[in-house]
Amino acid sequence: MGRVVTLGEIMLRLSTEQGQRLQDSDHFCAHYGGGEANVAISLANYGHTVSFMSKVPEHSLGLAVEKHLRSYGVDTSLLLKGGPRLGTYYMETGIGERAASVIYDRAGSSFAVMGCLEWSLEDCFKGVDLFHVSGITPALSEKWRGLTKELMEAAKQAGCQISFDINYRGKLWTQQEAGKALEQLLPLVDICSAGEMDALYLLGIAKAPETTVNPLIYYYEKMQERFPNIQTFYSTKRTVHSASENDLQGTLWMKDSYFESPLHQVTSIVDRVGGGDAFAGGLLHGILEEMQPQAIIDFATAASALKHTIHGDCNQFNQAEVASFIASGSGKIIR
Amino acid sequence: MGRVVTLGEIMLRLSTEQGQRLQDSDHFCAHYGGGEANVAISLANYGHTVSFMSKVPEHSLGLAVEKHLRSYGVDTSLLLKGGPRLGTYYMETGIGERAASVIYDRAGSSFAVMGCLEWSLEDCFKGVDLFHVSGITPALSEKWRGLTKELMEAAKQAGCQISFDINYRGKLWTQQEAGKALEQLLPLVDICSAGEMDALYLLGIAKAPETTVNPLIYYYEKMQERFPNIQTFYSTKRTVHSASENDLQGTLWMKDSYFESPLHQVTSIVDRVGGGDAFAGGLLHGILEEMQPQAIIDFATAASALKHTIHGDCNQFNQAEVASFIASGSGKIIR
Amino acid sequence: MGRVVTLGEIMLRLSTEQGQRLQDSDHFCAHYGGGEANVAISLANYGHTVSFMSKVPEHSLGLAVEKHLRSYGVDTSLLLKGGPRLGTYYMETGIGERAASVIYDRAGSSFAVMGCLEWSLEDCFKGVDLFHVSGITPALSEKWRGLTKELMEAAKQAGCQISFDINYRGKLWTQQEAGKALEQLLPLVDICSAGEMDALYLLGIAKAPETTVNPLIYYYEKMQERFPNIQTFYSTKRTVHSASENDLQGTLWMKDSYFESPLHQVTSIVDRVGGGDAFAGGLLHGILEEMQPQAIIDFATAASALKHTIHGDCNQFNQAEVASFIASGSGKIIR
Amino acid sequence: MGRVVTLGEIMLRLSTEQGQRLQDSDHFCAHYGGGEANVAISLANYGHTVSFMSKVPEHSLGLAVEKHLRSYGVDTSLLLKGGPRLGTYYMETGIGERAASVIYDRAGSSFAVMGCLEWSLEDCFKGVDLFHVSGITPALSEKWRGLTKELMEAAKQAGCQISFDINYRGKLWTQQEAGKALEQLLPLVDICSAGEMDALYLLGIAKAPETTVNPLIYYYEKMQERFPNIQTFYSTKRTVHSASENDLQGTLWMKDSYFESPLHQVTSIVDRVGGGDAFAGGLLHGILEEMQPQAIIDFATAASALKHTIHGDCNQFNQAEVASFIASGSGKIIR
Amino acid sequence: MGRVVTLGEIMLRLSTEQGQRLQDSDHFCAHYGGGEANVAISLANYGHTVSFMSKVPEHSLGLAVEKHLRSYGVDTSLLLKGGPRLGTYYMETGIGERAASVIYDRAGSSFAVMGCLEWSLEDCFKGVDLFHVSGITPALSEKWRGLTKELMEAAKQAGCQISFDINYRGKLWTQQEAGKALEQLLPLVDICSAGEMDALYLLGIAKAPETTVNPLIYYYEKMQERFPNIQTFYSTKRTVHSASENDLQGTLWMKDSYFESPLHQVTSIVDRVGGGDAFAGGLLHGILEEMQPQAIIDFATAASALKHTIHGDCNQFNQAEVASFIASGSGKIIR
Amino acid sequence: MGRVVTLGEIMLRLSTEQGQRLQDSDHFCAHYGGGEANVAISLANYGHTVSFMSKVPEHSLGLAVEKHLRSYGVDTSLLLKGGPRLGTYYMETGIGERAASVIYDRAGSSFAVMGCLEWSLEDCFKGVDLFHVSGITPALSEKWRGLTKELMEAAKQAGCQISFDINYRGKLWTQQEAGKALEQLLPLVDICSAGEMDALYLLGIAKAPETTVNPLIYYYEKMQERFPNIQTFYSTKRTVHSASENDLQGTLWMKDSYFESPLHQVTSIVDRVGGGDAFAGGLLHGILEEMQPQAIIDFATAASALKHTIHGDCNQFNQAEVASFIASGSGKIIR
Repeated sequence: MGRVVTLGEIMLRLSTEQGQRLQDSDHFCAHYGGGEANVAISLANYGHTVSFMSKVPEHSLGLAVEKHLRSYGVDTSLLLKGGPRLGTYYMETGIGERAASVIYDRAGSSFAVMGCLEWSLEDCFKGVDLFHVSGITPALSEKWRGLTKELMEAAKQAGCQISFDINYRGKLWTQQEAGKALEQLLPLVDICSAGEMDALYLLGIAKAPETTVNPLIYYYEKMQERFPNIQTFYSTKRTVHSASENDLQGTLWMKDSYFESPLHQVTSIVDRVGGGDAFAGGLLHGILEEMQPQAIIDFATAASALKHTIHGDCNQFNQAEVASFIASGSGKIIR
Repeated sequence: MGRVVTLGEIMLRLSTEQGQRLQDSDHFCAHYGGGEANVAISLANYGHTVSFMSKVPEHSLGLAVEKHLRSYGVDTSLLLKGGPRLGTYYMETGIGERAASVIYDRAGSSFAVMGCLEWSLEDCFKGVDLFHVSGITPALSEKWRGLTKELMEAAKQAGCQISFDINYRGKLWTQQEAGKALEQLLPLVDICSAGEMDALYLLGIAKAPETTVNPLIYYYEKMQERFPNIQTFYSTKRTVHSASENDLQGTLWMKDSYFESPLHQVTSIVDRVGGGDAFAGGLLHGILEEMQPQAIIDFATAASALKHTIHGDCNQFNQAEVASFIASGSGKIIR
Repeated sequence: MGRVVTLGEIMLRLSTEQGQRLQDSDHFCAHYGGGEANVAISLANYGHTVSFMSKVPEHSLGLAVEKHLRSYGVDTSLLLKGGPRLGTYYMETGIGERAASVIYDRAGSSFAVMGCLEWSLEDCFKGVDLFHVSGITPALSEKWRGLTKELMEAAKQAGCQISFDINYRGKLWTQQEAGKALEQLLPLVDICSAGEMDALYLLGIAKAPETTVNPLIYYYEKMQERFPNIQTFYSTKRTVHSASENDLQGTLWMKDSYFESPLHQVTSIVDRVGGGDAFAGGLLHGILEEMQPQAIIDFATAASALKHTIHGDCNQFNQAEVASFIASGSGKIIR
Repeated sequence: MGRVVTLGEIMLRLSTEQGQRLQDSDHFCAHYGGGEANVAISLANYGHTVSFMSKVPEHSLGLAVEKHLRSYGVDTSLLLKGGPRLGTYYMETGIGERAASVIYDRAGSSFAVMGCLEWSLEDCFKGVDLFHVSGITPALSEKWRGLTKELMEAAKQAGCQISFDINYRGKLWTQQEAGKALEQLLPLVDICSAGEMDALYLLGIAKAPETTVNPLIYYYEKMQERFPNIQTFYSTKRTVHSASENDLQGTLWMKDSYFESPLHQVTSIVDRVGGGDAFAGGLLHGILEEMQPQAIIDFATAASALKHTIHGDCNQFNQAEVASFIASGSGKIIR
Repeated sequence: MGRVVTLGEIMLRLSTEQGQRLQDSDHFCAHYGGGEANVAISLANYGHTVSFMSKVPEHSLGLAVEKHLRSYGVDTSLLLKGGPRLGTYYMETGIGERAASVIYDRAGSSFAVMGCLEWSLEDCFKGVDLFHVSGITPALSEKWRGLTKELMEAAKQAGCQISFDINYRGKLWTQQEAGKALEQLLPLVDICSAGEMDALYLLGIAKAPETTVNPLIYYYEKMQERFPNIQTFYSTKRTVHSASENDLQGTLWMKDSYFESPLHQVTSIVDRVGGGDAFAGGLLHGILEEMQPQAIIDFATAASALKHTIHGDCNQFNQAEVASFIASGSGKIIR
Repeated sequence: MGRVVTLGEIMLRLSTEQGQRLQDSDHFCAHYGGGEANVAISLANYGHTVSFMSKVPEHSLGLAVEKHLRSYGVDTSLLLKGGPRLGTYYMETGIGERAASVIYDRAGSSFAVMGCLEWSLEDCFKGVDLFHVSGITPALSEKWRGLTKELMEAAKQAGCQISFDINYRGKLWTQQEAGKALEQLLPLVDICSAGEMDALYLLGIAKAPETTVNPLIYYYEKMQERFPNIQTFYSTKRTVHSASENDLQGTLWMKDSYFESPLHQVTSIVDRVGGGDAFAGGLLHGILEEMQPQAIIDFATAASALKHTIHGDCNQFNQAEVASFIASGSGKIIR
């Protein structure tokens, strides 16, 4: 089992019950989540020793975040308390043909307005195997772009592998801004979640020739050429039939080869938020455990599929449960 | 944007949670709705100025109806207060193979027992573009058959277009009674929701020859022959795979031509009640906005499909949301 | 209408809401059920006079069981009160790809620890047409293996038909133990729920030759050869696409012929527990009413399909509702 | 233990959650109840053999009534099925200073519109010790005034004691109408719930002289003078401090003597509906069990106080629980 | 009936269920409210014509505010749409000895960041009898201090009476800032909610001599001396026994005389938020209806007491209900 | 801040909603708790480093216990996994005059059936300041009486103070058995929760002379005479007015002096379970922090009073919150 640190913003999600519009809801379901926090929880569930670095306000909502993380065994000694507010967002839960829709209210959060790194980085990364962060963090502010680099460098210095999930969000920054930041960050990265869209629009890779049999392989190859330091690329292919039914397939570029998982027909979707983080969490687990590439991508995709069957942002399945899910196929009562 | 008046009964629906039988339910969900009220709300959502004419008792349930309508911006100055009771019905919500089932308890309602028109009709229809009523109103009583005609005549006099949704309910009157009443009413109508069943069983149109390619076009033509005053006919084709999955397609006869929408596979149905009213509301919006026939039928069908994804009788989507739904396809998270 | 007695354990099921993991649930749904109790309720719903024999503790949970049964009109005069506890189990409700999972906490229940038959058997079975019990009862203890035989003999003596549902549960006994017990019990049985697995692993019947067109017919024939006293065998074929979608087909061996129902595509499954009992209940109803074999298997399978659409262990549909479901197809609103 | 028959209307109550106005409620709690049905359930809880006579519609709501009664062991073989509807009422639940408020929607119910007695009265009352009915039944219609008398006569003929709860409701009939009917009915009665208000306004008894120490004794004496056939009068004194806090004291006139219970300070009231019926049920139990008068009134008042602590119309406590409540005082955890 | 305009911020309140800590809540109840919006709704309930001026974001939460106001018949044509966000706050609901506690997250709201008055003030106040605003508005920003004065002047110009509720909030500004602003605003005011604390700490009035019999009268007199333009002062005296039990008494200074209501023992408090606004609403209704001072203060206090019995920020009782509450005392079922 | 270890059983509580009888509940609220676990959580909330020793089954319910403890920051490295089941109990929540009532289903739990101490005791108690256990543990089995002594001896050896809460439960052992065990255990104890009942019935202390002014002081003195090793005794005086209203006062014998807290009128009680553990937790915190005796007893009693206002077994208030509650009195909104 490895030692892992993840860093990022964690927010309060306020969502409607299925079949309710936001403007007619007399209550909201409360979930706490964020990409890197969700990955932290996944890895803790799999038995790794995980710390989550972030900053939340020093009141009940900050405590709620802390309780949430601690309940999964994630170490919160690097979770700072202070600052003005917890970022929130409202989600009208989708169903059938109607997509979920989101209203962000995240500006000015305790994490987003941080002006410097308030941790002793040396202590943070000592003896740590893996540091994970996503593209949402540098997207939060000009300041955070620099801080993210600073963090990666400190982690690398301390001997960590660096894992980065590009996770581009058009509401937070432009493609140009993102592209520029990635130029700075990706040379420090070892493991990267990135797909065709990232290659085309953020990394400036030219479109694959029409005749390319599997364009994704093409893009993985080109990205690796650009950033030879990155040994592993991964992403999912998702076909959205409706808000309640998606097809999901994981793909992995590792050891100069391409691997893909079986296709999961994810039906009766309960909650899609965090599906990508569950995938990343499963993948990093496979890497930390030095599983075979095919086993890694199968595990990560199964973990992501399972995530869709529960409420909340984070994967709540341990290693044995994911393995048993892979083994047994789907939907029989386990007595 | 147009000025619209709709008239009809509005009832309290008491329904079970999914997966519960009526006799075992310890609570009922409460929704207020009725065909014409639902159309009124749809049109108000799209930005039209809409008044709803009806009568409800002068107690909390009447006030509940008023609050419901007002919350959508529907004018309630023509909503009379008084009379003995609010019509109610109980619905055991269906799911999967089990159909919803309904127990009506609507007899003797404040609206149904009205003996004369208690409004000043001249004021009601002044400056109004469209008057909408359904076949449920004349079905309520012998008296209401006459009053419905009186209303249509007054509205026509005032320059309104007359919209009529046949909406035949076998529990309220016989086919013979309905047919006789339609003879009286349809000559006053401009826009009519009617389909094959109505043509065959209420309007006495002979069955289409076996060789007819699209019998619906045949029936639309024959109905228009019978009632040349009606410029527009419309109806939906619904294939019920289960209570949770229907195929839905809108059809329109307008300017002597036939139009049909793409087929919507409506899955994970939340609440089917009011789907037809959402369709009518979308269609009338298209007509009031003078959209092209194909755009009208696409909009109306999309509005109806969206209605299936929310609880309650009425469409809660505005013009921009329906348009964006048509544009973006279904089920992706809108961040 | 017949007179029926069923006997078995009844337990408290504590289950999660859909989309919740057991460890995160702040409440559990409570249902009372057990194979033979569920069959009792089904038959009472169809109009038969039914008594349920069991033992529950003399406190509120015992009273809850009694109220549950009485509410369906099942006679509880043979429901003993006393003993240490009510058997319980926890169920994490499945959805989509994620299967339901069950934690049993049933050891030491008032019923399981019974050391002798505390009823006057002569009174119990006087004038009774059918006695139904399942393989779960002899699985509970060495003692119960003997008591089950004693009960069957007394019932047979009194002129009852004996109905037995093998319902093998690997958590309660081994295949060997079960096989040995069945040797003792099946010679007393008239109607038996048993399928391919039972034939192969419990009754020691050799695998059907590769070339067998319908192996199930083969196994039914072989089982009847072994136990010529059994006039009727039945079982369901279930294909699990996911926890929310199964295919279900009923099969019946009766009068030396094979019958099967139409295939039900059971979607949007609400609660699968008790689906087999609903099937058995429908089948026994058909036998008691002397319906034709094809009608019996169609009725039983329809009853089972309907069961999947409601919460709780027991079938809550009467004869007319099942018949109307068969007649009308699925999913249309019944106004 | 006695054999008892009660007769009356049973209705569906649709009530709000605490702290909600009726017009803003998106769901209603459903309870089934009626004075005589509630008394029937109380007596069944105490171990008596009880039948309830009424008429409910032949659909799910009628079945719900039947299940409700059966779950308490009340015999429903005299519960007729048919007629137009189930009477309903809406209740905005009170709390603190705000009183509960009620909207009746009971006109035209299956029971109220009965035109003749559809039972074989001889069978109904054979071997029955006590027949209980209330003043709500004759208040329902001119017709029911006659039928009530007919029932009482038949019951008396068969050897029953007649119990009558005046329960005057000003919304159903005038004091004059009630007074006239009581003239006819009370000469047939043995046990009567009546208090000061009934004496003054329905039975025309003159106001007690100013100097009377305990006017209630005066009124009991005068009523007994008027109706010497009535051996037992009883009523409660209730002081309403708020919707959540009442003082409650039971009074009894029996064997020419006056008895009163300790005063109960009923606080944190959950549901006051049916408190009077729980009192009547306890009292009739005491009479059937031939308890001493003081024990009777203490038991009845304790039963009524307990009723206030649970949702729903009916008393859900058995003899042992009421006795233990009397013995132990209030509010300690019973481990 | 009068014509009224109120202006202020309206926020989303996210509150816990009773007995839950904020950090452990998996859902929050959603209510929309604000002092001036609550007064607007009260006055609309009493039949006045009321407009509410504010600004909310142009997304679902803004629409939710609009629907909330419209459902009570408040005109929303002056409710602007736009700006960054809706102010929110979290409330851990109190009970018994534990007080409610609040976390504000209101900074940067669409209303608070307004830099100029975006309405045509002339149109806003034309024909309006009363303009109501509270001290929360000038507390929001330096800018809003000026804008509030501008609004008051425009309203005064148009012939409105000016009503002002000081409503000092220490979290928004200092006593010094507030005192300075009040110097500017109060000379424009006709009706003012202010009490002893306001006099002492904001208006710099010296402490009443020890021997003063009723210090409140002293402070009312002194405040009137300072601001002779203010004809009416009012405030409540609240004794907090616990979060669930308060004593409440209304006081009024009008026509140079002092009036006070009966003392209300407000028990089983459901929701105290908005109690002061309900009081103000009742008082302004009394003034608009030219009731006698004693009737005004009795009405206002009764309205406030009733408010405590329902969830949400706003008074939901009409004139007849408040009057009937005053007449009937508390807590009896109204059948 | 101190280092603390507590040991004991932790159970699943399944309780009804207020106003529901157990037999009518269709769901149960789930809480995890036990005396020593609750004390552990209290102390962790106050900032101490706390480990909880127990054993729970290795399935979802065991994980639920672990998540519960971890969410409060309690170390679970000494929480063993294994054994047959988690002890449970059912609670019908009391309200008003109706007391809560409890059905235990705890026999045979993983903790209760432990046959030896499966921890390395030396590691457990190294550097620990305080070891806390209650009389429930030795009550579980003959075996556990010995093991408890073994634990205390090991803890004492390691330099821990020993805290013991007698907490006598008549359902688990007789007074004689308890008395005999206490003889063995109390000589090892430093801090003891014990009151008059314990003195009289378990420790065989003679009744205080009639003339004793404060008998509790007498018993504290006598107990200290018997066990001079015990420096601190404490207990609460609770007067039960109803299930919803208790008076609560803490008492402390320390440094040969008697201290008592102010009396708390605990009204609108949400959940009384764990009130004693919150008291013990507060008291041990005071001792660990070396507060003055009067401050200790005030803090402990306030913590206990606050506990009554929240659902669940454990105190959820930190040091600052309890202190602020003491300072501010009760029930005002904290904005």
